[in-house]
Amino acid sequence: MKKCLFCKIISNQAPSHKLWEDKDFLAFLDINPVNTGHTLLIPKKHIDDILDLEEPRYSNIFKTAKKLAKIIRIAMKSKRIGIGIEGLSVPHLHVHLIPVNKINDFDPNRAKKATQEELLEVAEKIKQKMNI
Amino acid sequence: MKKCLFCKIISNQAPSHKLWEDKDFLAFLDINPVNTGHTLLIPKKHIDDILDLEEPRYSNIFKTAKKLAKIIRIAMKSKRIGIGIEGLSVPHLHVHLIPVNKINDFDPNRAKKATQEELLEVAEKIKQKMNI
Repeated sequence: MKKCLFCKIISNQAPSHKLWEDKDFLAFLDINPVNTGHTLLIPKKHIDDILDLEEPRYSNIFKTAKKLAKIIRIAMKSKRIGIGIEGLSVPHLHVHLIPVNKINDFDPNRAKKATQEELLEVAEKIKQKMNI
Repeated sequence: MKKCLFCKIISNQAPSHKLWEDKDFLAFLDINPVNTGHTLLIPKKHIDDILDLEEPRYSNIFKTAKKLAKIIRIAMKSKRIGIGIEGLSVPHLHVHLIPVNKINDFDPNRAKKATQEELLEVAEKIKQKMNI
């Protein structure tokens, strides 16, 4: 998938604010956050549909989402972390991790382009809380 | 949690359109579907926050979500099934399984009360595809 934006991000051919990665997964900031701290967790091996993701990666992506969500919640001081997979837009599976404090915070219509400065600051805040 | 609506649904003290259950989980139709076939998957033991759900139930709720999502996709003939946990509204953990055909289908603002007839018809359609 040479033209896949998220594959390019994985291989550093496209810029991103990476938060964490291991051999299977990468977490980075959404550049159009629904709320501050909105993170995307993706598998490094290209796959489009979550329903096609086989074990152990299927369970592992959700286990990883849980670890990251706990860190993001602390870093962003949010009530909850919404977890969402919509399945359309970029055709590379991505789990949205969105800090939520009230019901409307999980509304995709709230997505708004963040500045590089904002993203840098948020990435630093989250990375400071990491010990996974 | 005597006053929890979802606990009442589990124990049949409140009505619902149940689709499937086992000893740990229950799936039933959302009465305010974002899209036709919108299903809620909940743990039978009351818990509020997904981040407090321990193994093996944590992995099992997502494994169950995958099985149900495949069935709902077939029954609703949808492109994808969006998977979402927002964490607010009813304080009993619920995984949204939402048929999506275009990006806006995952928008919580689209939630609209369904009639009993509509819910009955959708429940029948989904249950006909079940063999899990």
